[in-house]
Amino acid sequence: MGKEGIRYATKIDVDADPESLPYLHNRWHPDIPSCGTIKNNETVKIECVDWTGGQIKNDDSANDIRDVDLTRVHYLSGPFDIETAEPGDVLVVDIQDVQPLEYQPWGFTGVFAKENGGGFLDEIYPKPAKAIWDFEGIYCSSRHIPGVRFAGLIHPGILGCAPSDEVLSKWNEREAQLISECSHMEKVVALPPEPKCAHAGSGDASIKEKVGKEGARTVPGRPEHGGNCDIKNLSRGSKVYLPVHVKGAKFSVGDLHFSQGDGEISFCGAIEMAGCITIKFSVMKDGIAQLGMKSPIYVPGPVEPQFGPGRYIYFEGFSVDENGKQYYLDTTVAYRQTSLRCIEYLKRFGYDDYQIYLLLSCAPVQGHIAGIVDVPNACTTMGLPVDIFDFDIMPHVKAERRDLGTCAYAS
Amino acid sequence: MGKEGIRYATKIDVDADPESLPYLHNRWHPDIPSCGTIKNNETVKIECVDWTGGQIKNDDSANDIRDVDLTRVHYLSGPFDIETAEPGDVLVVDIQDVQPLEYQPWGFTGVFAKENGGGFLDEIYPKPAKAIWDFEGIYCSSRHIPGVRFAGLIHPGILGCAPSDEVLSKWNEREAQLISECSHMEKVVALPPEPKCAHAGSGDASIKEKVGKEGARTVPGRPEHGGNCDIKNLSRGSKVYLPVHVKGAKFSVGDLHFSQGDGEISFCGAIEMAGCITIKFSVMKDGIAQLGMKSPIYVPGPVEPQFGPGRYIYFEGFSVDENGKQYYLDTTVAYRQTSLRCIEYLKRFGYDDYQIYLLLSCAPVQGHIAGIVDVPNACTTMGLPVDIFDFDIMPHVKAERRDLGTCAYAS
Amino acid sequence: MGKEGIRYATKIDVDADPESLPYLHNRWHPDIPSCGTIKNNETVKIECVDWTGGQIKNDDSANDIRDVDLTRVHYLSGPFDIETAEPGDVLVVDIQDVQPLEYQPWGFTGVFAKENGGGFLDEIYPKPAKAIWDFEGIYCSSRHIPGVRFAGLIHPGILGCAPSDEVLSKWNEREAQLISECSHMEKVVALPPEPKCAHAGSGDASIKEKVGKEGARTVPGRPEHGGNCDIKNLSRGSKVYLPVHVKGAKFSVGDLHFSQGDGEISFCGAIEMAGCITIKFSVMKDGIAQLGMKSPIYVPGPVEPQFGPGRYIYFEGFSVDENGKQYYLDTTVAYRQTSLRCIEYLKRFGYDDYQIYLLLSCAPVQGHIAGIVDVPNACTTMGLPVDIFDFDIMPHVKAERRDLGTCAYAS
Amino acid sequence: MGKEGIRYATKIDVDADPESLPYLHNRWHPDIPSCGTIKNNETVKIECVDWTGGQIKNDDSANDIRDVDLTRVHYLSGPFDIETAEPGDVLVVDIQDVQPLEYQPWGFTGVFAKENGGGFLDEIYPKPAKAIWDFEGIYCSSRHIPGVRFAGLIHPGILGCAPSDEVLSKWNEREAQLISECSHMEKVVALPPEPKCAHAGSGDASIKEKVGKEGARTVPGRPEHGGNCDIKNLSRGSKVYLPVHVKGAKFSVGDLHFSQGDGEISFCGAIEMAGCITIKFSVMKDGIAQLGMKSPIYVPGPVEPQFGPGRYIYFEGFSVDENGKQYYLDTTVAYRQTSLRCIEYLKRFGYDDYQIYLLLSCAPVQGHIAGIVDVPNACTTMGLPVDIFDFDIMPHVKAERRDLGTCAYAS
Repeated sequence: MGKEGIRYATKIDVDADPESLPYLHNRWHPDIPSCGTIKNNETVKIECVDWTGGQIKNDDSANDIRDVDLTRVHYLSGPFDIETAEPGDVLVVDIQDVQPLEYQPWGFTGVFAKENGGGFLDEIYPKPAKAIWDFEGIYCSSRHIPGVRFAGLIHPGILGCAPSDEVLSKWNEREAQLISECSHMEKVVALPPEPKCAHAGSGDASIKEKVGKEGARTVPGRPEHGGNCDIKNLSRGSKVYLPVHVKGAKFSVGDLHFSQGDGEISFCGAIEMAGCITIKFSVMKDGIAQLGMKSPIYVPGPVEPQFGPGRYIYFEGFSVDENGKQYYLDTTVAYRQTSLRCIEYLKRFGYDDYQIYLLLSCAPVQGHIAGIVDVPNACTTMGLPVDIFDFDIMPHVKAERRDLGTCAYAS
Repeated sequence: MGKEGIRYATKIDVDADPESLPYLHNRWHPDIPSCGTIKNNETVKIECVDWTGGQIKNDDSANDIRDVDLTRVHYLSGPFDIETAEPGDVLVVDIQDVQPLEYQPWGFTGVFAKENGGGFLDEIYPKPAKAIWDFEGIYCSSRHIPGVRFAGLIHPGILGCAPSDEVLSKWNEREAQLISECSHMEKVVALPPEPKCAHAGSGDASIKEKVGKEGARTVPGRPEHGGNCDIKNLSRGSKVYLPVHVKGAKFSVGDLHFSQGDGEISFCGAIEMAGCITIKFSVMKDGIAQLGMKSPIYVPGPVEPQFGPGRYIYFEGFSVDENGKQYYLDTTVAYRQTSLRCIEYLKRFGYDDYQIYLLLSCAPVQGHIAGIVDVPNACTTMGLPVDIFDFDIMPHVKAERRDLGTCAYAS
Repeated sequence: MGKEGIRYATKIDVDADPESLPYLHNRWHPDIPSCGTIKNNETVKIECVDWTGGQIKNDDSANDIRDVDLTRVHYLSGPFDIETAEPGDVLVVDIQDVQPLEYQPWGFTGVFAKENGGGFLDEIYPKPAKAIWDFEGIYCSSRHIPGVRFAGLIHPGILGCAPSDEVLSKWNEREAQLISECSHMEKVVALPPEPKCAHAGSGDASIKEKVGKEGARTVPGRPEHGGNCDIKNLSRGSKVYLPVHVKGAKFSVGDLHFSQGDGEISFCGAIEMAGCITIKFSVMKDGIAQLGMKSPIYVPGPVEPQFGPGRYIYFEGFSVDENGKQYYLDTTVAYRQTSLRCIEYLKRFGYDDYQIYLLLSCAPVQGHIAGIVDVPNACTTMGLPVDIFDFDIMPHVKAERRDLGTCAYAS
Repeated sequence: MGKEGIRYATKIDVDADPESLPYLHNRWHPDIPSCGTIKNNETVKIECVDWTGGQIKNDDSANDIRDVDLTRVHYLSGPFDIETAEPGDVLVVDIQDVQPLEYQPWGFTGVFAKENGGGFLDEIYPKPAKAIWDFEGIYCSSRHIPGVRFAGLIHPGILGCAPSDEVLSKWNEREAQLISECSHMEKVVALPPEPKCAHAGSGDASIKEKVGKEGARTVPGRPEHGGNCDIKNLSRGSKVYLPVHVKGAKFSVGDLHFSQGDGEISFCGAIEMAGCITIKFSVMKDGIAQLGMKSPIYVPGPVEPQFGPGRYIYFEGFSVDENGKQYYLDTTVAYRQTSLRCIEYLKRFGYDDYQIYLLLSCAPVQGHIAGIVDVPNACTTMGLPVDIFDFDIMPHVKAERRDLGTCAYAS
């Protein structure tokens, strides 16, 4: 009662080297030491760096995107011990709010270079690109993509409890097998443990070595704990149910997004930001058995930006690729085509391809699996909200080519 | 003005053999004769048989599903010539309404047997099953899946304009190539032209032969015209923009659904029904070039059933299959896992697996592509609306096993 | 099971004189004989005439509005006995659907002449006027108010159970007292029983005489049973809880509206139509005590037309009238001002006053009581959905005066 | 660009006596000196005290409510000069965000004593009462009204530009006339200028005297500028269009609400709080003429808490008061009855009357004007969102009386 704010479980220093901060880490491993304890039913604030740990600047060049060091990313705040949590329990995470840092009201969306990170459309759009987004309260806009402004659907890209040794081994084995099976492909299909730049929080040298050698990379989400699920409506007001694998749960969170489109197609595709998440934690004893739970579930909050259903244009895509090749019920191919249809549509207004690629990555576009059984074509749809544009983009209105500037490119 | 209803472009006879009806057909081919002409800017009603042409009965056995003759299905109403439509134009289809037939207020959802049709989860659920749905105004309910009742998100599963000869050849070639490439697989990966039971409307013997030999099967949607896209929110009030490939457009429609979930996972998965669709047609001259259009687009209507965002439980799935095998950004695998997570969750209330499989196919579940770039895991989500249930299924409420009967099985 | 539609409890003959039809009546009185029995838990269809009993024509003159005989209106279908219903119970009315008659796809909105009916703004707009609305599926549009098109929020204006003798006496007494208290006013403040054109359904001469002498007029809604409540979102899919005052409930329904704005300001203000309502009836025994109910309650359906919150322009009005006179917390005065603000706004686009008066009466405008405690000013708001217009009416866009024709006027 | 937050136009000291703070004032008067200048198109943050200036404590007694000094309230932040604004212009106020103060995460709702402030239901509920609300991110809950939790619909109760001398005179005259006309009533019908505790910001003694003698009280909203309109959905993301009456506009804002129900029925009825509002200001030259504007208009933001339409229970009320007296189209009487119906309904669950009175004042209930033309009964409705309750309050579920504690009362 009285004049008292909510307790901060972490405050971050955005100017410090993230590797030097003991309350951050960038691997999933049960041995990373807890950086604090939170009571059952306690609400705390947790500050987070952006997932590149500050590598990206608020400027008009994509050189930083081009040159980003992808071994130095995905710093998470935590892990936190939650009192009373035991393996078999479910940790209930009430996301009471997510906000950017008051003194840093901006974020970024990037297209990684094909050679350094890539993305969903890198065969077609191989160059690095960037858009800076300015936040004004609930809204954001970008000097690099003029003509759009929208309310954030703010959420954490990553949240989860630490894996047990057993779960971790399973991850490493199955991903190693994929890597070995795909050794003929030119693609990076998965990321094995990597000692370089592994950050084990406050762990000592031996822990750091172990975490570097065994720790799961934070890039993929994984069914057993969630992790980097990048789900756009796991947003403010959501209640998330997370399986607990180790004593204390060892909860971590990071990679906050001001907004993201379904698919987060450009990879560095959300509006990435440093910020603060307010969470109430509670423990559901024996929850995994009770809920029959193998993967996290969640109930969204009530305040997501709301457009009427008739204020979207929906694009259709099928599992026939841009070269006319037919695939068998391949939803990934279908969604790539759907994205391309939307890019073609928006180019008529004067945007260039990269501006749109960036926009579809971060604006609240709805990516749906429409039909997944009509052999051989999976059908996916992408719903583009028209009200984020300053001008009318409805199909019955004749498109007029405007001067819409450019996003940031590398020199 | 005055007492006058909207003109019927077709009235159907649900008791007749669909093959005998000149205003139906079941292949895509430019030579199928038009069965009527509709004016530019005219609104008409078009009645449609259910896609099995009446093979499925309103009873408590899935024998009809087990024995369904899949060469005698997908009868479409049309094709209709739209005055002034020419190749290069876009046909604007205003779906003013879709309704079941007044004298037949019921529909069905089926799980095909693995050996005869199959579906998205047929490796796990190979048996035939069925649920009959009773319609009462905007709502439906089923004696085979007690405890649920929901408003329809009524829509046509199939709509499109006829392909040109050129487009048709492209389809046949690329699908033939897939079939040949996959000849080692045990699956039916695509359906080549099939003379058996080909119905070419009012076409004479020579047309019928040609259509049987060349006509594209109606099962898959295809990027060039839409077709069997099975998109749940292409519903009442939607405005659809379809590319025109032949003079008069030769528009066809059918496979009406009272409701469908994203993915239509059980294949015969929507609530299939005979019914009537009211459409206003108008022609956008030179629309393909104007809209830069390669595939149909649409703007949904404003009356879809509306639950608050906080009235869904969302399930997460990743591209690791049920045997623990890791796939590379495979969205199809991820969505299968998402579906299974939801089935496991609902079983706790007393439903059996097939009841839930049927339900997720036809209830308005939201299937989203969440993250498609976090190698190696694609992440998809499925949002299950809790308000379609008579009892509280929220995760914080302890699940109580009820007697929830059974769906229809084969004898 | 099988081919069978829902039972019709009434079918109407729109060409007959409503007074000759035994299944209609136009007074509330317990002695009007039941015109049919409906089972507990049965679903039936009930056809209804429009509330003027067909006096208004689909033409371009408001002479019929000017000359309307207001003693020959408000014909209701019923009353129906619901099996098992007893005084003290609650009748649960599931409105499964409401539709216009298929062969009469149009309705009307009228402004009554000040001398014959009047309306909320009759001091300012005393002339008769009319708009005819054409229905195409879920949508309506009017040649008399070009530039708008919207989906219906279809509902019954009137529904309720018959009053008991006791309840009826109470109504007659309190309204007679108001009439006597206001005898100095020039306004018709309430309508006493009126034998002229009283229609007592199938009642014989003595019943007819009694009903004419005592029967409550159907114009006002009343707290004890609902009646002519004119609530726009008591629409398709709603579940209404009605107090039962007599054995069998004696339920009546009528005055169907394709759409209505909050307030129904022009009095004949909804889009009035003949149509069919589908209702499931069930009886909650002893429901009045259980629910502590003094007036009806309802839970709306899930399919109302849905615009995003940011797709409304809201107008504010306060309890200071158009002559600058200050009133004390008078919400009625405030709402009149709010309506005028909206009319002034829309006139800038080329509509004339009566067109807008008609439009605000029937389009789904949101009328809210904002503040009702800030002496001396009540504040009300009116939310106007911008997406019902073909052109952009947002305030940041410069208004351009168009040629928007005219509504129908009297000669 | 870079690390820089949004500029604060005011920071407040919540511990200081508001009368001592030069950037606050509590009258509307053109001579109150500007406390700062804001550029056209600039975004600033403005901190505000709660409207009682800190008189209400976070404790469990309503003594402070009982004893509140109503001459020392409604302190507004400002007035601010907006560059380029001139009489005849419209000031466009983009409400980018509203937040409580981080270090004071709570607010209050009060029922004033009938003798000291009163409220909409003070004839029935004359005692003082209070509920304290704790804020956790987007949500609030109260130890005084257990069983409810909801997301805030955060908004300013008061915002507006200063009146010109002319406008001010008009206000004073018309309200004086009402007071004189109602001198026989026992009620306070309006508040005349009052020198006691008038706060004229940084104005010197002569300004203070003038403002005290002539300044309009801040309690009522007024059509010419808005002011204390208490509109619940004039919330985050809204764009408000305000008429400008004096050079520089002299904009003021205050009385921030975490949430409010339509009507704000208990008078001190919103969740009152100190907080910070982020606004972008821009000037529409000659906007009053362009928009044909007599009163403010606004377009709401897209993030209001969203429940499905089927997740409300709607209560009906008519213009017959609780003693059975009939009124003529009196919407205020009707809304009072509607409120009482809702209170009766909720009492069945164990809440006491004052708890519910408080709750309906501040929770996001929808108050609609349903029918305002059916003589003699106006009909209003109140929609109560069921999802703000921890337990199921739907009418088909049997109400169970719980121990739901008590709100704060005076000793």
